Amino acid sequence: MSGAERHAAALQCDVGGGHAFTLRVPEGDTHARHVCDDCGYIHYVNPKIVVGSVVTWHGADDGEPRILMCRRAIEPRHGFWTLPAGYMELGETTEAAAMREAREEACADIRIDALLAVYSIPRIGQVQLMYKATLLSPDVMAGEESLEVALVRNNEIPWGDLAFPSVRWALTQHREVAQAGAFVPFTNPAGDMGNMVHGAD
Amino acid sequence: MSGAERHAAALQCDVGGGHAFTLRVPEGDTHARHVCDDCGYIHYVNPKIVVGSVVTWHGADDGEPRILMCRRAIEPRHGFWTLPAGYMELGETTEAAAMREAREEACADIRIDALLAVYSIPRIGQVQLMYKATLLSPDVMAGEESLEVALVRNNEIPWGDLAFPSVRWALTQHREVAQAGAFVPFTNPAGDMGNMVHGAD
Ligand SMILES: [Zn+2]
Ligand SMILES: [Zn+2]
Repeated sequence: MSGAERHAAALQCDVGGGHAFTLRVPEGDTHARHVCDDCGYIHYVNPKIVVGSVVTWHGADDGEPRILMCRRAIEPRHGFWTLPAGYMELGETTEAAAMREAREEACADIRIDALLAVYSIPRIGQVQLMYKATLLSPDVMAGEESLEVALVRNNEIPWGDLAFPSVRWALTQHREVAQAGAFVPFTNPAGDMGNMVHGAD
Repeated sequence: MSGAERHAAALQCDVGGGHAFTLRVPEGDTHARHVCDDCGYIHYVNPKIVVGSVVTWHGADDGEPRILMCRRAIEPRHGFWTLPAGYMELGETTEAAAMREAREEACADIRIDALLAVYSIPRIGQVQLMYKATLLSPDVMAGEESLEVALVRNNEIPWGDLAFPSVRWALTQHREVAQAGAFVPFTNPAGDMGNMVHGAD
């Protein structure tokens, strides 16, 4: 079995030696944890933070703002359109993470303007922080995780080919505040937990 | 060696068998990862989300608002004062996490009113989401992680005995918007990454 295959199997205790985890409520705890059957080690699995941005280019010749979008080169949702976003790393701030992702996915140099939204996607254990940002140069280019990148007009947004519900939320909510000065950040549209049944709709 | 001692030692590969991690940049990656020397498994360590709230009780006889504070029964900073907050769990939204923490730490029933702030604490790999909230009943009581809880007036806040810098940030920033309707959420005070040298000052 390859290393990857073994990791695809049940979680192994960090101690090594083939200990295995089961999900149960440890004494004194109120929440089910991955507890090692052999040595009692508790493996905490926490939600992950995704940071991204709705980036606008204001310098087009026709004066119409453009939004930076990326077509995914990797799974999940290969070939579908998304906003520059990705997992936050240790040692950075949320704003630095958004800037790094824009740089990595689209070679884009951006300025963070405001927090646009905080989304919770409980089923996959994610919290997404989306920022409203300004593109500082139109010289964008696909990074490794993008098949292509584009600066799209509002009426060119590929609504039918978005990668995830949260991309749709961010683009829709951004429209409401695109011209605004200060605004209160958004969260999930009421009752929507971001689960995908068919596509991102 | 106990299970706990072994876990205090260097990270072990999830595969088991005593594989050990070293920090290096995998091929095709741009960031140092914990890579298993034996089988190449990459153990991603991501920042964790802490969710908490500045909770106000508006029903005191003297009409003065009170803020819910908890004195820590656990390390780090045992005995120091904090706001109800803790690690977010899988399967919940950020707002539900804030409500759960208030319930667990102070038996407090709260209503979430607005996002108060987003703090990044890069050195310890944390992002903190702080909410502005309203206490629905004054019948609060210390939970297991609190030595005591109190509803404190503004001029009673134990500024000299706060557990962490972010507690001070949240209380200070909350003061600015305590009476406000809509407001733009705060972030770290300029240039402050939340490192503690002496106490929370
Ligand atoms: Zn074990
Ligand atoms: Zn290994």
